[in-house]
Amino acid sequence: MTVTVAVDAMGGDHGPEVTVPAALTALQREPDLDLILFDREQDIQVQLDVLANPEPDRLSLVNATQIVGMDELPAQALRGKKNSSMRVATNLVKSGNADACVSAGNTGALMATSRFVLKTLPGIDRPAIVSALPSLRGHIHMLDLGANVDSPPELLLQFAVMGSILVKYVEDKPDPSIGLLNIGVEDIKGNEIVKRAAELMRQSNLNYKGFVEGDAIYTGDVDVIVCDGFDGNVALKTSEGLAQMITHFMREEYRRNLLTRLAGLISLPVMKSLRKRVDHRRYNGATLVGLRGTVIKSHGSADVLAFRHAILEAVTEVKHKVPKHISEELTDMMKAAVT
Amino acid sequence: MTVTVAVDAMGGDHGPEVTVPAALTALQREPDLDLILFDREQDIQVQLDVLANPEPDRLSLVNATQIVGMDELPAQALRGKKNSSMRVATNLVKSGNADACVSAGNTGALMATSRFVLKTLPGIDRPAIVSALPSLRGHIHMLDLGANVDSPPELLLQFAVMGSILVKYVEDKPDPSIGLLNIGVEDIKGNEIVKRAAELMRQSNLNYKGFVEGDAIYTGDVDVIVCDGFDGNVALKTSEGLAQMITHFMREEYRRNLLTRLAGLISLPVMKSLRKRVDHRRYNGATLVGLRGTVIKSHGSADVLAFRHAILEAVTEVKHKVPKHISEELTDMMKAAVT
Repeated sequence: MTVTVAVDAMGGDHGPEVTVPAALTALQREPDLDLILFDREQDIQVQLDVLANPEPDRLSLVNATQIVGMDELPAQALRGKKNSSMRVATNLVKSGNADACVSAGNTGALMATSRFVLKTLPGIDRPAIVSALPSLRGHIHMLDLGANVDSPPELLLQFAVMGSILVKYVEDKPDPSIGLLNIGVEDIKGNEIVKRAAELMRQSNLNYKGFVEGDAIYTGDVDVIVCDGFDGNVALKTSEGLAQMITHFMREEYRRNLLTRLAGLISLPVMKSLRKRVDHRRYNGATLVGLRGTVIKSHGSADVLAFRHAILEAVTEVKHKVPKHISEELTDMMKAAVT
Repeated sequence: MTVTVAVDAMGGDHGPEVTVPAALTALQREPDLDLILFDREQDIQVQLDVLANPEPDRLSLVNATQIVGMDELPAQALRGKKNSSMRVATNLVKSGNADACVSAGNTGALMATSRFVLKTLPGIDRPAIVSALPSLRGHIHMLDLGANVDSPPELLLQFAVMGSILVKYVEDKPDPSIGLLNIGVEDIKGNEIVKRAAELMRQSNLNYKGFVEGDAIYTGDVDVIVCDGFDGNVALKTSEGLAQMITHFMREEYRRNLLTRLAGLISLPVMKSLRKRVDHRRYNGATLVGLRGTVIKSHGSADVLAFRHAILEAVTEVKHKVPKHISEELTDMMKAAVT
């Protein structure tokens, strides 16, 4: 099957300089992929000319007259930017002319636009942001990473169901294990919301393992970690900050003197392997799960490798028909969950 | 001035094997320190005999017949363990026979016991857990790290005030900068609680810098980060998990073959310096701030160096009269904050 992905190529911190080479390498990597890129004032065309697109038949350009700013209010983008690349891309998914859309733009606006255009799946109140994160045992999936604050217990259960189905199909794991993020593993810990959510999950047919603490993200004890978007975002950004600090300190220590520089030189292959194992770029591409279509959010600061990964993530999810499976399995799971 | 610290030496994951050598090295490091250790069935005495205490005049033993279990419910410990080391230690602070108490025991029970025995300072509804964390620019302080969930805006303001005063005196910074943890730096981001808390902080005479995201813990852009205990605990535990994963991967990569082992050997001094800069043991000893007395909580898994650091942290805070300063400055600050 050929998968057509609409790419909001003007978005993100770097724009076409990153998105265009990422698109071209994605086409080379994935033979079943066709791309639609949104251009404004020929910025994309210029990049394509420079890079001499080797796959002209599989990449088409569509003009988009507007761009949603990174700081723009979601409601404002929704009302005022009906010809933005983001909006037109989701329109294409809605009309069936594209199978998925990828954007490195404003997260809130992308979420609001996708919800408005594509709608949520039946049984889902609000979409969530889910992403893979590296762990000691490979990787885990975590949601919500920032789309919803003050999520009630019922919404946390929906996150768990969506995470479970996504991992089941994308990772080919028959019965993914679910952990609920809390500040202790004992039943008495946490607030009323997580306690009630835990009850709902215990009563469901999910493979629910109980509360987990923040360190479980990286120990990989469960396949899916469920949390409110505030906490998920805090965990994610805290991790980014810590990883950057450690990298910075390591660089400083290796540059301290001639001897340490030598040690650094000799350690290059080790550092390269290490970096590869925890490289956040290999995890770029968070899914806006719960929509009637596949929408992938790339980190705003994504580089070529990272943005390509986001495009390929879209292909994977389309091939595995994630929204369809969620829709089909949800009704049964939710029924079982509340009885 | 001599500072007397009561040490719940039976607590923590390792008990006297860690706490006794930590106590003895703390005495050597800090000439103004006297210690009271709580013993049960002579476990401490046995360790002291083995290690041949060089400072017998500065270390006394008190018998405590009960120990609070790590999984015990706080209310249960409070009612049923009136002769626990934890309880007697806080009693000594209350009576003025000790200046501070240090424990590696059950956090919830320690918090409940300290609140019950010592009471909170006037103007403080609930104590918070505050600790220093390493950052690119040295370190920052963060609170609450897990004592309070669902903190209302007014409580977050109290955390900010306490954090500011603690850093002012302990770090000798005249006007510490405060950041409020959120999932974005724009005013529209987050839930109603952080938005309202931000308003209160803007109206206060605190050096409030606005919202910060999780990565600000490690960039060190502000001196104090304020958050609800749920989020603070998630950030802390997530960091622990990530640091452990990176350490684990690094070790694996350096052990891959003969060449990488050689690189590891040559890199040992670099790794040692790096480890020193981010060593969580050097940050062990969280303060239960907001009480009428100094209570320090050590990590349960603390080793000798870490537990010694917690004892020395108690000395620092007593010497800087943190509770007294909070009490004195609080009334004025809170008045200014709400007008």
